[in-house]
Amino acid sequence: MLFLKVRVLDIDLENLVLINSEDLKSSQYFPQDRVVVKFNDKEVIGVLYSSTSLINRGEVGLPKKLVKELNVKEGDVVTIRHADRPRSLGYIRKKMDGNKLKKEEIFAIIDEMVDGKLTNIEISAFVTSLYINGMDMDEIEAMTIRMAETGKMVDWETQIFDVHSIGGVPGNKYALLVVPIVASTGLKIPKTSSRAITSAAGTADVVEVLTRVDLTIEEIKRVVKETNGCMVWGGALELAPADDITINVERPLGIDPKPLLLSSVMAKKLAMGVNKLLIDIPTGYGAKVKSIKEASSLARNFIELSERLKIVTECAITYGGQPIGRAIGPALEAKEALLALEDYKQAPTSLVEKSISLAGILLEMGGVSPPGEGKYMAEDILAKGKAHDKFMEIIVAQGGKEVSSEEIEVGKYYTDIHSPIDGYVTRISNSGITRIAKEAGAPNDKKAGVYLNVKVGNKVEKGDVLYTIYSDSEERLKSAAKLARILYPVKVEGMLLQKISRF
Amino acid sequence: MLFLKVRVLDIDLENLVLINSEDLKSSQYFPQDRVVVKFNDKEVIGVLYSSTSLINRGEVGLPKKLVKELNVKEGDVVTIRHADRPRSLGYIRKKMDGNKLKKEEIFAIIDEMVDGKLTNIEISAFVTSLYINGMDMDEIEAMTIRMAETGKMVDWETQIFDVHSIGGVPGNKYALLVVPIVASTGLKIPKTSSRAITSAAGTADVVEVLTRVDLTIEEIKRVVKETNGCMVWGGALELAPADDITINVERPLGIDPKPLLLSSVMAKKLAMGVNKLLIDIPTGYGAKVKSIKEASSLARNFIELSERLKIVTECAITYGGQPIGRAIGPALEAKEALLALEDYKQAPTSLVEKSISLAGILLEMGGVSPPGEGKYMAEDILAKGKAHDKFMEIIVAQGGKEVSSEEIEVGKYYTDIHSPIDGYVTRISNSGITRIAKEAGAPNDKKAGVYLNVKVGNKVEKGDVLYTIYSDSEERLKSAAKLARILYPVKVEGMLLQKISRF
Repeated sequence: MLFLKVRVLDIDLENLVLINSEDLKSSQYFPQDRVVVKFNDKEVIGVLYSSTSLINRGEVGLPKKLVKELNVKEGDVVTIRHADRPRSLGYIRKKMDGNKLKKEEIFAIIDEMVDGKLTNIEISAFVTSLYINGMDMDEIEAMTIRMAETGKMVDWETQIFDVHSIGGVPGNKYALLVVPIVASTGLKIPKTSSRAITSAAGTADVVEVLTRVDLTIEEIKRVVKETNGCMVWGGALELAPADDITINVERPLGIDPKPLLLSSVMAKKLAMGVNKLLIDIPTGYGAKVKSIKEASSLARNFIELSERLKIVTECAITYGGQPIGRAIGPALEAKEALLALEDYKQAPTSLVEKSISLAGILLEMGGVSPPGEGKYMAEDILAKGKAHDKFMEIIVAQGGKEVSSEEIEVGKYYTDIHSPIDGYVTRISNSGITRIAKEAGAPNDKKAGVYLNVKVGNKVEKGDVLYTIYSDSEERLKSAAKLARILYPVKVEGMLLQKISRF
Repeated sequence: MLFLKVRVLDIDLENLVLINSEDLKSSQYFPQDRVVVKFNDKEVIGVLYSSTSLINRGEVGLPKKLVKELNVKEGDVVTIRHADRPRSLGYIRKKMDGNKLKKEEIFAIIDEMVDGKLTNIEISAFVTSLYINGMDMDEIEAMTIRMAETGKMVDWETQIFDVHSIGGVPGNKYALLVVPIVASTGLKIPKTSSRAITSAAGTADVVEVLTRVDLTIEEIKRVVKETNGCMVWGGALELAPADDITINVERPLGIDPKPLLLSSVMAKKLAMGVNKLLIDIPTGYGAKVKSIKEASSLARNFIELSERLKIVTECAITYGGQPIGRAIGPALEAKEALLALEDYKQAPTSLVEKSISLAGILLEMGGVSPPGEGKYMAEDILAKGKAHDKFMEIIVAQGGKEVSSEEIEVGKYYTDIHSPIDGYVTRISNSGITRIAKEAGAPNDKKAGVYLNVKVGNKVEKGDVLYTIYSDSEERLKSAAKLARILYPVKVEGMLLQKISRF
């Protein structure tokens, strides 16, 4: 056991425990040992590293996160000892061996993950095992429940509605229309969203162009009480923290094992106290889900899991083969959504059609519309400007101010990409458009992105503008334009696709 | 792209790229992004972190390892850009999906691993996939060859012999007898060993009690030229670096997937230029391999792989159900091995028997002994003191000096553990003995360890000394004695094992 004085480090290496190299040498510890740091009755887990110059002998450097969790201050003396081998390692092994895990075993894995007792190596082994060996619904149910229970849980005194898209299609700004339509009928819809994970703009990034999104749970409750809805960032609410931990491992691997896809969505909904949920499954070439068959299977899984969790869930399989609407990137998307709220006939039909369809299902689920009438009721709410008024109410309640679509600024540098030939737009690549928007600076540069002048099926002539790239940085714009020439994400072809000559 | 001035950090976080938080915020980078640091034509991969106080704006802190690889000095300006997504990720996915990998795909994985382009998350996913989905011999062959090729390769002008144990049994100091026996006949046996990974003493730790073990390849060649043998640490030779990388991931997971077990051993032998190899597979309760059947299967795999690599290999399945000899811990083991060389009749028979059996096989493989006579020839070499003389030659050539077993010091603090009852020793737990020796300080405290007074089958009386724990630290000795009472690794039972009473 070591006794060392705390020095607060402001480094973003969250589990760093930094001691002097001489102290390390004279101890029984090794670099990268997992250790428990203890102060009074509080304990945290960290990973040991050493340095001769960054830390003095007798001191331990701790990043702010650990300092906060331990409730220590500079100069306090903490003890350091070896962390026990996490007991859930045996259960991860069991899943590697292809066996079904018991509820208690899954609970142990999630608990130790949230307590910081598992390293990325171990979490990656767990995620990979789930990808290869899967889980049955009993296991997924247990994992979902524990993911929710190990974070904050929100209590409401009323029925709560929500809509969630599993993602994978750019420009998917439907929530900015659906939330105010639904909220305007009196149904409560506190929508939490993520920031962009791999996309050019998450819903939270788009809403943030217009108002604050980092609300506390208390603030959310106040906004929902005042307006029936909200559109906030879920990331700061400490809902289902195990979900964020596994996502950080899934992302670099480029995998999304079904048990985690299901539990990730449902744990957050369970924690948020949702009673009635609509899940949007964008489907098509270049989307996360490629076929209707695959989408149906996923929908059935969501519904079975939801029943076990006592959440009434419906799924909508929507077209995700090209971007939704024309705008991709935070400010461009906010502008387009706002335009749809102001005058929906001017907005892209794919966005309006999707939004009123989804809103309609929720209105029917909430009993405010007769079966089969929801979509028309939603369209009516949009057409009459009620959705626009509700949207502005919510924006203001969250701390923003009223704004018109015209007032929203986009990147001051832009460049047009032209069609090289006469023909038809045969395909728009979701991933290509996303990469170009990100290269231009989205989502960090909120004004960066892509605006599509054409959609699949449009006839174009040589020299017509296919799309425009925006950025606040001239350098990044150039870089994005260069990428656009390589990726060629909007494909134009003549009607004659191939000519076979005689030999 | 960022242009930053180098500051050399002496921290043991090997791939840290530390920049100021303000520089991070105003860039397109995020914490934990994988970046390429470039100086002149040299590039290294690192992981980005930020701090406000540990590094100034305009500077980048790099640990010594990266500084050395880049060949930069304090104040040099380097550029930083996003690292491309490693192309081998797709191949790791392919293995996750249960498919056979092509040679080029395996090469790409090993290359990117060695170049530092894969993080622990990705390496763990690869290792886990190998554990679950395995590899066929074509894949293992390709992996082994590439692991060897991506490190240093040693060239000899003569035939090279080697002996290797897959480990798992404590006190396995046979190499200190086998190497001099074999070398004394004129066969060349440059033995490389590891330090303890999970054990209380690796062969390199034991030899280091007597002489230097961190020799360069040039020094090894000189020693082998002078003496025909050597006993050195393989870790500093940069042989098959991918092996060390995967071991660092396997260890915390407690797994050793067969493709990696095979390639790990054979890649190092290939790199070391070995032509004729004997592999020791300790087998039994509490060893890595539990049954003769399992050992035979592993032996066949080693032989098949060796044939493809043009290495002549034989395997010896040896008894590993209890420690080899009586001494566990670097100094205790060195003392025991030396005693066996001085007067083998005084040494534990399990050590002598195993050593002359293994040496005998090598003598037969080398053609210096007729088939079936190797063991007797080896015993004769040991009995006549030729092995002792050769051992001292090697020790001196490696930079040590002649020493007798009596001169070797062991821990100045010790405590005896007594039998609680009359009875027979029915079991000695390999893992229990290892844990106690490590708790006492082994292998870092070279004088720490355990000396067994009894072996399985011995009759003992209540109060007899079962074993003695040694340490150079009174505190650690206490801690080890406490652990001994919990683990009870030497089991003594009466002949009456269970009494069934009438109900």
